[in-house]
Amino acid sequence: MTYDPASFRPLTFHDAVAGFSEGRDSPRAYLDRCLETIAAREPVVQAWVVLNETGAKAAADASTARWKAGHPLSPIDGMPIGIKDLYETRDMPTQMGCEAYRGNFPKRDSALVRALREAGAVILGKTVTTELGQSHPGPTTNPFEPAHTPGGSSSGSAAAVAAGMVPAAIGSQVGGSIIRPASYCGNVALKPTQGALNRGERQGLSQSTVGVHANSVQDMWAVANEIARRAGGDPGAPGLFGPAIPPAARRPARLIVMEAEGWSLLDHPSRRAFEGVVDALRAQGVQILHRADAAAIDAFERAIATAKAVTATVCGYEARSSIQNLVEAQPDGVSARAKSRHALAMKLTPEDYRAALLERETMRRALAALAPLGDALIAPGSPGPAPEWAGDVPGQPLAPRPTGDIAYNAATSALGVPAVTVPLMAVGGLPMGLQVIGQPHMDAVASGIARWMQETLAPVVM
Amino acid sequence: MTYDPASFRPLTFHDAVAGFSEGRDSPRAYLDRCLETIAAREPVVQAWVVLNETGAKAAADASTARWKAGHPLSPIDGMPIGIKDLYETRDMPTQMGCEAYRGNFPKRDSALVRALREAGAVILGKTVTTELGQSHPGPTTNPFEPAHTPGGSSSGSAAAVAAGMVPAAIGSQVGGSIIRPASYCGNVALKPTQGALNRGERQGLSQSTVGVHANSVQDMWAVANEIARRAGGDPGAPGLFGPAIPPAARRPARLIVMEAEGWSLLDHPSRRAFEGVVDALRAQGVQILHRADAAAIDAFERAIATAKAVTATVCGYEARSSIQNLVEAQPDGVSARAKSRHALAMKLTPEDYRAALLERETMRRALAALAPLGDALIAPGSPGPAPEWAGDVPGQPLAPRPTGDIAYNAATSALGVPAVTVPLMAVGGLPMGLQVIGQPHMDAVASGIARWMQETLAPVVM
Repeated sequence: MTYDPASFRPLTFHDAVAGFSEGRDSPRAYLDRCLETIAAREPVVQAWVVLNETGAKAAADASTARWKAGHPLSPIDGMPIGIKDLYETRDMPTQMGCEAYRGNFPKRDSALVRALREAGAVILGKTVTTELGQSHPGPTTNPFEPAHTPGGSSSGSAAAVAAGMVPAAIGSQVGGSIIRPASYCGNVALKPTQGALNRGERQGLSQSTVGVHANSVQDMWAVANEIARRAGGDPGAPGLFGPAIPPAARRPARLIVMEAEGWSLLDHPSRRAFEGVVDALRAQGVQILHRADAAAIDAFERAIATAKAVTATVCGYEARSSIQNLVEAQPDGVSARAKSRHALAMKLTPEDYRAALLERETMRRALAALAPLGDALIAPGSPGPAPEWAGDVPGQPLAPRPTGDIAYNAATSALGVPAVTVPLMAVGGLPMGLQVIGQPHMDAVASGIARWMQETLAPVVM
Repeated sequence: MTYDPASFRPLTFHDAVAGFSEGRDSPRAYLDRCLETIAAREPVVQAWVVLNETGAKAAADASTARWKAGHPLSPIDGMPIGIKDLYETRDMPTQMGCEAYRGNFPKRDSALVRALREAGAVILGKTVTTELGQSHPGPTTNPFEPAHTPGGSSSGSAAAVAAGMVPAAIGSQVGGSIIRPASYCGNVALKPTQGALNRGERQGLSQSTVGVHANSVQDMWAVANEIARRAGGDPGAPGLFGPAIPPAARRPARLIVMEAEGWSLLDHPSRRAFEGVVDALRAQGVQILHRADAAAIDAFERAIATAKAVTATVCGYEARSSIQNLVEAQPDGVSARAKSRHALAMKLTPEDYRAALLERETMRRALAALAPLGDALIAPGSPGPAPEWAGDVPGQPLAPRPTGDIAYNAATSALGVPAVTVPLMAVGGLPMGLQVIGQPHMDAVASGIARWMQETLAPVVM
């Protein structure tokens, strides 16, 4: 199961629909293949909390009829898709990886789920999330090496897409919960501009986003676009900007390397892999700027050097009341890991929070100053490939980062900017993503650059 | 019951606490007086959905002990308070004036409710809201004339405070739901800067705010401050700015009259009442500016001239998914009035929403240009006193505005600015408020000016 980019055959959807029209294939047959893959791999990967096979088959049959009649509802009509178990679905429980929510079943569709159904997508199941989208891990394993983490919090979405169980799944990111697992699992994934995709009932954190895990920029964009078209963005946000069809491949003229807090954490082969991509970009005529090349880049790096701490303060403070309700109602329904984080958050004052918001705003100003310097920023999607995770050891202190380090993601989360990861590296038999980071609302530009990279550059194997 | 400002004795709390310390009075005795008033007036006023008398008595007894011991938790320790039935309370259902939510009982405290409990406040009950905070009215009547509306959507909160049942109650405003009922009921009330007080689980609308109904600026500010101190503001917002003790009375040098969409709706006595207040302000040496006095004021008035339509588009679009879930799950659980509004909202496109956001942003820029011209803006809190409301007539089209017109409130809601209303007018035996409107985050300045007005000006009776 070791990852080899040369032989890995990712499951995509956009290239299947011609077969649906021509009668060579059908959404129902596509779904059945997904279900076969799930049957084969789920016992080890454990990406799903619950599947609605009956509902999915009925939806796929209805989609098959629409394609046959030549009237699909959208380009993703018939696409089997997984929903991170933080978002409500009317036909499946929403248990958030948290004992306190066991059996929680509000029988409503989150705005994005409704939008996907209206576009004809087949809502196949709920994917494993870490507890409440925080750090306590679920059972999911890395599809390329089960002793390693799939990343989190969108663990099941990243793993299901990597294992070929579905061509796309919904994730969400507050600190590093889309791009990091996507990097560890070799996905293509979008963490959009803050507010670009409607978070529905989950508006409680100021830097959380809904995003898409897929195996191609085409599928990734199509899913995002269908959500944006039907459900819009968050309250007060203008929603996703960009074309209705996936952005064309776009060769950048200049790219800026973002070091962030991850640079010093990269081991030697991971850094060599990243430098290999940079060399390949240069060979394509792309100019690469580092922090030593411009004072504004250096100032930006200094501004984002505390992104992890800012993220912890902002998110911890914002989540206090809802976690406190849980802990009071069901003290045993919340993990020790979450309770320990919550205890720290309860010590924060309004002034601490305001200071963190100000620091975050300073980061955003520093990023804005880079707009004239490059078409986008690039960075590894994670500080190395997926680390091994053998579980907490009874009697020992809790491992601080069971699903990996957000050192390459806290900054982009706090900045509220679009990040697209593509699997351009392999280190030690595991994938590692390269993320393309845009200015706010430049989701389509970042996606077009990412598409160009995936179509043009050979993955670097270390 | 007709309103006469000269004889009306509003129930306040800040002036009772000296008695608690000295043993002449106690929070329990204060609560018992509130309960007596409720027993006497609730059959006609109908401000409450549910009361938790047992819990309130226990909380008041605990508060009594703290005051006796000289260790109150805050200046509002022991204050009986009503919570608008849109916000979750762990000890009472949250039914939102909507049949589809009958019996809804999540057993959680909204962030603001938790904060009030931590400050020692006595959570006495849930106050009537119009259905889902929209326009379909509940049973509450105007405490000064039961044939007239108390306003909405914070109907029960405004009426309970006016009837002397509690010294303060929590309301919320999206279009005109705090200031309008407060104006109709003669309350002092604060609609704070957008995001200044934590809306907890209710983050779904980009221009909704939590606010406070009271009978004095002192009580109003104390409640807001205790929430802000403990629960902060909305995610991403810096929260309420201002002193921990109520702002001192503040005489303004210059005030700008806001005409908004309400000016043309004022009948003759209401306009004369407002002009009487303006004359009294001039007599105190305050300079008054009208739209003819400065091009920037005229530009502002032109920018806000469509505030009601902008508010309808923004809020309608943002609420679509949640209302659609309700309507699908319980078609008979939502009023015809709400369904008709929802049907219009379902026709909106993402482009319509973006255009409305842009128009709203233009309004905000036009307001910012007024900052150097005046200390605050003033306007009536409503386009006249509370109108009569006899209920819908079967077979006839639904009355469009059963709880009154938001013509003086849509603009301040869309602007996201603080508005404080004080009962400075009486028209036809009913109160009418004067609202003081500040620039964003100038809640304390607006409150100080409002306090000065209430302490300095004699109400104008027409």
